[in-house]
Amino acid sequence: MKQDTKDRIIETGAGIIHHKGYHHTGIQEVLSAAGVPKGSFYFYFKNKEDFGLHVIDYFDHFILQMLKPVMEDDSLSALGKIEGILDHFIDLFKNMDYQCGCPIGNLSQEMGDLNEAFGKKLSESVEKVAKIYQGLLDQARSDRELTVDMDTAEMAEFIVTSWQGALIKMKINKSIKPLVLHKRYVFNMLTPNGAYKKEKNDGVNA
Amino acid sequence: MKQDTKDRIIETGAGIIHHKGYHHTGIQEVLSAAGVPKGSFYFYFKNKEDFGLHVIDYFDHFILQMLKPVMEDDSLSALGKIEGILDHFIDLFKNMDYQCGCPIGNLSQEMGDLNEAFGKKLSESVEKVAKIYQGLLDQARSDRELTVDMDTAEMAEFIVTSWQGALIKMKINKSIKPLVLHKRYVFNMLTPNGAYKKEKNDGVNA
Repeated sequence: MKQDTKDRIIETGAGIIHHKGYHHTGIQEVLSAAGVPKGSFYFYFKNKEDFGLHVIDYFDHFILQMLKPVMEDDSLSALGKIEGILDHFIDLFKNMDYQCGCPIGNLSQEMGDLNEAFGKKLSESVEKVAKIYQGLLDQARSDRELTVDMDTAEMAEFIVTSWQGALIKMKINKSIKPLVLHKRYVFNMLTPNGAYKKEKNDGVNA
Repeated sequence: MKQDTKDRIIETGAGIIHHKGYHHTGIQEVLSAAGVPKGSFYFYFKNKEDFGLHVIDYFDHFILQMLKPVMEDDSLSALGKIEGILDHFIDLFKNMDYQCGCPIGNLSQEMGDLNEAFGKKLSESVEKVAKIYQGLLDQARSDRELTVDMDTAEMAEFIVTSWQGALIKMKINKSIKPLVLHKRYVFNMLTPNGAYKKEKNDGVNA
């Protein structure tokens, strides 16, 4: 029961922080939304920072879980999985009305300079996703899906990093276009001769 | 004198918001740092939102001013100007110990979902920088500096957007590498055969 309550506070807090940011989210607000009695916060967490670090773990786990169906889909090639991941998130943000963005990217922007423990944990989380992309790029290379030579670690980092910028643009433009443009540019770099689904209309100009 | 005081509040507030974010910055904190008597805030601003909108205008103007020396340097080609802009900001963030990032991008991330007036103004500011890049890309095309055909408006958007992601990565990794990698990938796209300063060691692997 205690763990259930702790998990409920974390999950509820994560939802609020995803929308409003860390500093703008109050502990009391989280407890009320979670239906947990006031004053019990410090039974579960040392302080707001400790709570925030648990929330980052929650987001990290949540994102990796979201990638699983695509990663475990044996019908997809390695580049097909990269496309599947990007499509999954493009659909997700369409359904979310272009709001919130990536919780790990948001907290990186908000907290990167202000809290070293947050920065370290966020950096590790970003690195995990980059490693997944790198593994897929290495697979694509050995399967001869990649039509150009590249440093797969750097390309993976660029894909993850550039995506975070596209999410910021999505939030202010309230449009899916920056995400679709990101995907198109990534695939232009991975298969510059357009070998990969050249004819596909990605809807940027729709 | 009144305008001086108002400008001082805006400039001081901009510095604090650049580092800490909008919600985490208190009005009282700004007035103290600006050396302005408590209580005078509402003489100059309707509310914190009104103050925030003035701060965005300040950032917007500040960034455009920073681009001027490069834009007015007649010794540079169009692609040389794009390189000059990126180098200018890479040097700036080295000197700032990889902190703060782009104030317009930060506020876009923090406020894009929470305040429509902020979102509109931020979007306009991002658009201005994209237009500058687009103008340079168009110039580079007509000067035959670009070795590939491209939609210059989309490429300009991608350069600006991807840069914002690189700044987030810089903040959590406390490293200039994401910005240098961004520049390299941008120039790989602009001159894929490496025509533009192919031999230059950008220090990513240093």
